[in-house]
Amino acid sequence: MAKAWFEPITKELAAVEEEIFRELHSSNAELNDMCNYVVSAGGKRIRPAICILSYLACGGKDVSKAISLGSAFEIVHTASLVHDDINDKSEIRRGRRTLHKEFCVSKAIVTGDYMMAKGFRAMGATSNQIVDVIVDAASRMSEGEFIQKEFEHSFDVTEDDYYKIIHGKTAMLIEACAKTAAFLADAPEEMIDALGNYGESIGMAFQIIDDTLDVIGDVNNTGKRVGLDLIEGKPTLPTIIAMRDPTYGQRIKEVFMRTEPSESDVREALDIIKKTDAIDYCRKKASAIIDKAIQQISVIKDSVYKDSFISLAKFIGERDR
Amino acid sequence: MAKAWFEPITKELAAVEEEIFRELHSSNAELNDMCNYVVSAGGKRIRPAICILSYLACGGKDVSKAISLGSAFEIVHTASLVHDDINDKSEIRRGRRTLHKEFCVSKAIVTGDYMMAKGFRAMGATSNQIVDVIVDAASRMSEGEFIQKEFEHSFDVTEDDYYKIIHGKTAMLIEACAKTAAFLADAPEEMIDALGNYGESIGMAFQIIDDTLDVIGDVNNTGKRVGLDLIEGKPTLPTIIAMRDPTYGQRIKEVFMRTEPSESDVREALDIIKKTDAIDYCRKKASAIIDKAIQQISVIKDSVYKDSFISLAKFIGERDR
Repeated sequence: MAKAWFEPITKELAAVEEEIFRELHSSNAELNDMCNYVVSAGGKRIRPAICILSYLACGGKDVSKAISLGSAFEIVHTASLVHDDINDKSEIRRGRRTLHKEFCVSKAIVTGDYMMAKGFRAMGATSNQIVDVIVDAASRMSEGEFIQKEFEHSFDVTEDDYYKIIHGKTAMLIEACAKTAAFLADAPEEMIDALGNYGESIGMAFQIIDDTLDVIGDVNNTGKRVGLDLIEGKPTLPTIIAMRDPTYGQRIKEVFMRTEPSESDVREALDIIKKTDAIDYCRKKASAIIDKAIQQISVIKDSVYKDSFISLAKFIGERDR
Repeated sequence: MAKAWFEPITKELAAVEEEIFRELHSSNAELNDMCNYVVSAGGKRIRPAICILSYLACGGKDVSKAISLGSAFEIVHTASLVHDDINDKSEIRRGRRTLHKEFCVSKAIVTGDYMMAKGFRAMGATSNQIVDVIVDAASRMSEGEFIQKEFEHSFDVTEDDYYKIIHGKTAMLIEACAKTAAFLADAPEEMIDALGNYGESIGMAFQIIDDTLDVIGDVNNTGKRVGLDLIEGKPTLPTIIAMRDPTYGQRIKEVFMRTEPSESDVREALDIIKKTDAIDYCRKKASAIIDKAIQQISVIKDSVYKDSFISLAKFIGERDR
C-alpha cells in the first residue's frame, strides 16, 4: 500500500502541534481557552507540512526552523479563519461550533487579532528577513476578500475573477510557505521559485476542490454544512460554471443573486448544479493544475520529500474532506 | 506665547500623513476608500510624534526612518481602533461615523486586518530588528482587551486591575514608539529605557484622561458621545473611584452592573460621578504620572525636542479632547 503523503514528516508535524500551543499561550485564561478551542479542532495542517517538506527537500539541516516557520504560518492561517467565519456567519468549522458562536463575536475578533500578531511574531523569530513575505501575503488575503465581496450575489463574475480571488485568498499564503522554507534552507533561487510555483498551484487546486465540496460534500467528512457559499452569494467555480449552463443556468443565477435565499432555493440550486457539468469541469481543472504543480517541481532532486510533495498534490486533487 | 508641542516637527508630521496613505494604498477601490475614510478622519497622531521626537532627541540623523516608523505605529494603532469600535458598538469616532457603521461590520473586520498587516509590513521595512517589539505590543493589546472584558459590569474591579488593563491597551504601544525610535537612532541603552518609561507613563496618563472625558467630555471637542464606557460596563478609573464613594457609590454600582442601562440611568450616573471626588482624583493621578514622565526624561540632554516632550506631557495631562 502506498504510504500516506505525510509519512516522512510525522514527527515534525507532531512538533508543530506543540509549538502552536506554546506560541499562543496567554496568561489570560479565557484568551488561552479560546486559542486552544480553535487550534485543538485540528485541521489538515497542510501549510506547516509544506514548510517542512520544502525545507527538507532543499537539504535544510535544522528542521526546527521549518517547524517554527510552519507553526507561524498555521497560526496566521487559523487567525484568518476566525475572522472569515465571523464575516461569513459560519456556524460550524472542523466539525464544531465556530469560535464566535461558541464564545462571542467581539472576543473572537480580539482572539483573531491576537493570533495574527503571535503568528507574525513567531515568523519574525524564525528569520526577520521573511516577515515581509508573510505580512504581504496577509494583506493580499484581505484584498482577495474584498474582490470576493465585490462579486457577491453578482451573476457577471467570470472564471478569471474567481482565479484572482482564490489566488489572494488561498494560493499566496501556501506559495509563501513553500518559498520561505526553501529560502531558510539556503536553496538556490531556481528551487525557491519552483517550490513557490508548486505551492501556488496546489493552493489554487485546494480552493477549487474546497468549493466543489460546498456542493457535493458530506458534513460528516468536511465538518461544514453544504451550500454555505451559495447562501452567502460567494462566487465559486462550480456556481460560475453552472450559471453558464443553457438549461439550468438561469435558475442558478436567480438563486445566486438572492441576498437571502430560502433553504429550499439552496437545496434546489445544489441539486441543479450537480446536473450540469460544473463539478466535472472543476475536477478536471483542479486535476490539470495538480499535474502542473507536479511538473513545476521536476527541478527538485529526487527524495522521499519530493515523493511526498507529489502524493500531497494528488491527495489535494482527490480529497473529499 | 508658548509654542505648540508639535512645532519643531510640523514638517515631519505632514510627511507621516502622506506616508500613511501611501502605505495603505490598495488596488482594490473599496478597500482603499475604507482605509482613506478612517485615516482622513485625522487623530492626534501622538504615536508618530513620539517616534519622531524620540529619534531626534537621540540625535538620529535620518529622520525619514522615524517618519516611516511613526507611520507604521499609527497604522497599527488605527487598525486596532477599527476592531475596537466594532467590539464596543461605537457609532462615532473622531467626529464621524465609525467604519463599520459607514460601511459594514464584515468589511471593517477585513479592513482592520489589512491595516494591521500593512502596519507590520511598514515596520519591518524600517528595521526588521524591531518588528517583534510592535507585534509583541499588539498581542498585549489583545490581552488587555480580555482583562477588560473580564471586569465588564463587575463592581469588584480594583484600581490595580484598571492600571493593568490600560497598560496593555494603551501604554505599551506608546512605550514601544519611544523605545524603537531611540533604538533606530542608535541611542545608548540608558536613553532607550528613559524614553520608553516616558512613553509608558504618558500612555497611562493619556488613557486616564480619556476615561475622564467619557464622563465630563463635550462631544464637540472629543468627537465621541459621553457615557459610552459606562453603557458598555467598561471599568474606568472615574467609575472605580466613584463606586467607592460612601454616599453615591451604591447607585453607581447598580448602573455599572446593568448590562443594558437605560439612557436616564446613564445620565444620572454621569451626574453622580461628577458629584464625587472621582474626576478630581483622576486628574491628580494623571498629573502625578505626567510629573513622573517629565522626571523620567531628565537624563536626555536639552534640546527643542526634549522641550516638546515636556509640553506634550503637559498637553496630555490637561487635554479636553
